Formats: sequence, C-alpha cells, structure tokens
Amino acid sequence: MAATDLTLYELVLANGRLASPYAWRVRYALAHKGLAFQSVPVKFTDIPSICGGSFKTVPVLTHGDATVGDSWDIVLYLDRTFPGHPAIFSSPAEAAAVRLTDEWFSRVVQRKLFGIYALDVHDAACADDRPYFRKSREPRFQGVSLEAATADRVSRLPALREALEPLRVQLARHPYLGGNTPTYADYVVLGAFQWVASVSTLPLLAHDDPLRAWLDRGFDLYGGVGRDSRMKPLFE
Amino acid sequence: MAATDLTLYELVLANGRLASPYAWRVRYALAHKGLAFQSVPVKFTDIPSICGGSFKTVPVLTHGDATVGDSWDIVLYLDRTFPGHPAIFSSPAEAAAVRLTDEWFSRVVQRKLFGIYALDVHDAACADDRPYFRKSREPRFQGVSLEAATADRVSRLPALREALEPLRVQLARHPYLGGNTPTYADYVVLGAFQWVASVSTLPLLAHDDPLRAWLDRGFDLYGGVGRDSRMKPLFE
Repeated sequence: MAATDLTLYELVLANGRLASPYAWRVRYALAHKGLAFQSVPVKFTDIPSICGGSFKTVPVLTHGDATVGDSWDIVLYLDRTFPGHPAIFSSPAEAAAVRLTDEWFSRVVQRKLFGIYALDVHDAACADDRPYFRKSREPRFQGVSLEAATADRVSRLPALREALEPLRVQLARHPYLGGNTPTYADYVVLGAFQWVASVSTLPLLAHDDPLRAWLDRGFDLYGGVGRDSRMKPLFE
Repeated sequence: MAATDLTLYELVLANGRLASPYAWRVRYALAHKGLAFQSVPVKFTDIPSICGGSFKTVPVLTHGDATVGDSWDIVLYLDRTFPGHPAIFSSPAEAAAVRLTDEWFSRVVQRKLFGIYALDVHDAACADDRPYFRKSREPRFQGVSLEAATADRVSRLPALREALEPLRVQLARHPYLGGNTPTYADYVVLGAFQWVASVSTLPLLAHDDPLRAWLDRGFDLYGGVGRDSRMKPLFE
C-alpha cells in the first residue's frame, strides 16, 4: 500500500461493518489501486457535521485540500490523481459502459434488495441512527412501517434471484464480470453483496447458486478486504 | 469505406429491411470501422441452406475462407482482423462491460419488446417465412397464438418504458450511451429500436420521451445507415 493523505468517511453499522454498498465500492477501488487511506467511521446522523455539512451522503474522500463526494466522482478522481497506480478504468468508454451497468443494477437489483433488507439495515444500524433511518426510509414505502414493508419479503426472493441472471450468464464466460481480472463492474456488484452480508437475517441466494464461486473469489480479493467473522450468511 | 471481401448474411423482412436486432448491431459495427461489405439478404427459411448449414441463426459474416456467426463473435473478429480501422472496443474490459449491459438489455428489455411486437414481426416477414415464424415462436408463449400473446400489449407499454430508465439516466450525462462518442453499447440498443422500427404497428415511446434526441443522433450516424422511408413511427 502506498502511503497517502487520503481520508474516507464511511457509514458504519453498530457491528462496525460498512453500511453502504457505495462505501464498499470505494474500498475495493482503493485496494485495486493499492492506495492506503484512513477510515473515519460515521453514522447517518453524523453526516451533517462532516466536511462543513456540504454532503448529504457518504462516502466522502478528502485528499489534502480536495474533498470529493459521490462514489463515482471519487473513483474517477482516484484514476485522475494517481495515474502511476493501476487504473480502475482502462478508458472513458469502459467507465461509461460500467456506469450503464450500474444504472441497471442500482435501479433494479439494489432497489429490490433494499425492499427485502430495509428492516435488517435498521436493526443493524447504530442505536442513535435507527429513528432517523426509519423516518427517512419509510416514505419510500408509501409511509408503511419497515416491518410491514418487509413482511412478505420471502415471497420476493425468487424475483430477486431471477433479476441476477445477467450476472450468471456473464460469469459463465469469464471469472469476473469485467473479464479475466476484476474491474469496477465487479466492485459495484460485490459492494451490494457486502452490504447485504453486513445486515442480513434472510439468506439471499440458494446454496447452489452459480454466483457463489465468483462471490468467493470477490471476497478474497486484495487480501480478503471486507471478509470477516461478522459477515452474515448469503446462502441458504 | 475500405474495399474488403466481407459478406454479411442478414435476415430480411418482406419490405427489405433487416429483421433482427443483431444484424443491425453488426451493420453499425461495420460502419464504425469504415468497412464495406456485400449484403446477402436471407429469409428465416433460408438459414439451413447458407454456409453449408452450419448456422442456426444469422447474421453470419464470411471473409475469404473465414466464416463467423453470432454478432458478438463477428464484432470481436472485426476488431482483431482490421486493427488499422477504428476500434469497436477500446479494451477487453470495455467489451466485457458492454456485454454485461447487453445481457441485461437482451434478457429484460428485448424480451419485453418481443412480447409486444411478435405478431408485427410475423406480419412483416416474407410470406414464405410466416408459417415457420409462427410455429417456432408460439412455443415461447406457452403455445398460445401470436395474436393471443400480443392482445394485451398496450397494457405492457408502461412497464417497457420504465425498463428503459437506465438508458435515460445515462443519456442525461453524455450524448451517447458510451460517452461522448458512440460505442457498441449504443449499437446494441439502437439495433433493437431499428428492429422495432422495421415492423411496428404500435408506437413504442411517448412523443416527449427523452430518448428521442439520442435516437435521432443514432439513426443519423454514418450517413444515416438504416434511416429510410420504410421506418415505422417509434413515437406516439
């Protein structure tokens, strides 16, 4: 790891694991580039008090005088600022193509995941954060409680698993979503699975899901960054 | 256009337009590379008699002694074989990322489009092809007729339009799906719209859909390849 003056503000749960798929993406991107950083764990309710209150969400990266929010802006900043380190994107066209994948993945798959795991995120959040999380997220479920919104979640697992089919087809072709080596497409999707693994009380995937081999490879990347004993089971 | 000995076998409708989104993709890829080719129009029922019957689908490209089927194999062949021409893919990682987008787009969006336009494709096919098309496609609708399978298609337009949302978000960011210049991600999606425009009797998009500006740009590419008076309206 190269020494740097990078600081990453990251949302954490009561168990200390990262609470956001976007923070996981940035962690993987930093590991990909071999950049050391200092982590500053924050709670939902801390966000207004970091970096002068200029951000509504984390992750936020600071680097000397520069402050960058939004995970996409952060990874593009890292590639621009550290050209001597392994590139996250091989070209602007690759970055655009991965971003289009992310638009599908975030809007379709991650939204379904949130519908299944919203109460688990609440329960795993720091105690101070729970009232805020409930108040800010229940409107996304037409104002019903997190409990009511997730009561039928088991019945939604089949549609979620079906929505992952493009990933399985891609992984039948090569070991990573991005080809023979991991790319940001892998980190986008791994980030969501890491987030689920931080909070889940309902295994997401069938025990023989073909995604399993890729998830194992992904969790092992970069010395197993993010693989730890606090992870919840992802497989039935 | 560089002179070559490339021949492209392509599925055509009764009106002479291409009948397959995959053929359109290859046409755009050839135009992107500036490669001239000879088009051999084929009907569904001709496929067993071309290239010694080794292919179940077209497009098929021949180049001297080489014969390549499958649109992805064809475009990768073109980049490998004509390195002096503009590259379709900037890197293997970009190709993998676009292919992942294609897995989503083909499985989700294009499948929905087929459910809406299956009868229109039948009606636009060459007369000889219609019985074959019906017999081979009706099993995809649990054996009901193409007429019955598409009877409620208007009610499925809202879900189809919603499924295109990742494209709109991406295009709010830059003029093409692939960034500032068109890439194969654009050709994958343009191919599907070209296919719909060849057969449609039901406008696909609302008149003010934000995709309109990109579609206009896309149809104008490379001297307006594929823009002609036989196109059906895509907008209400």
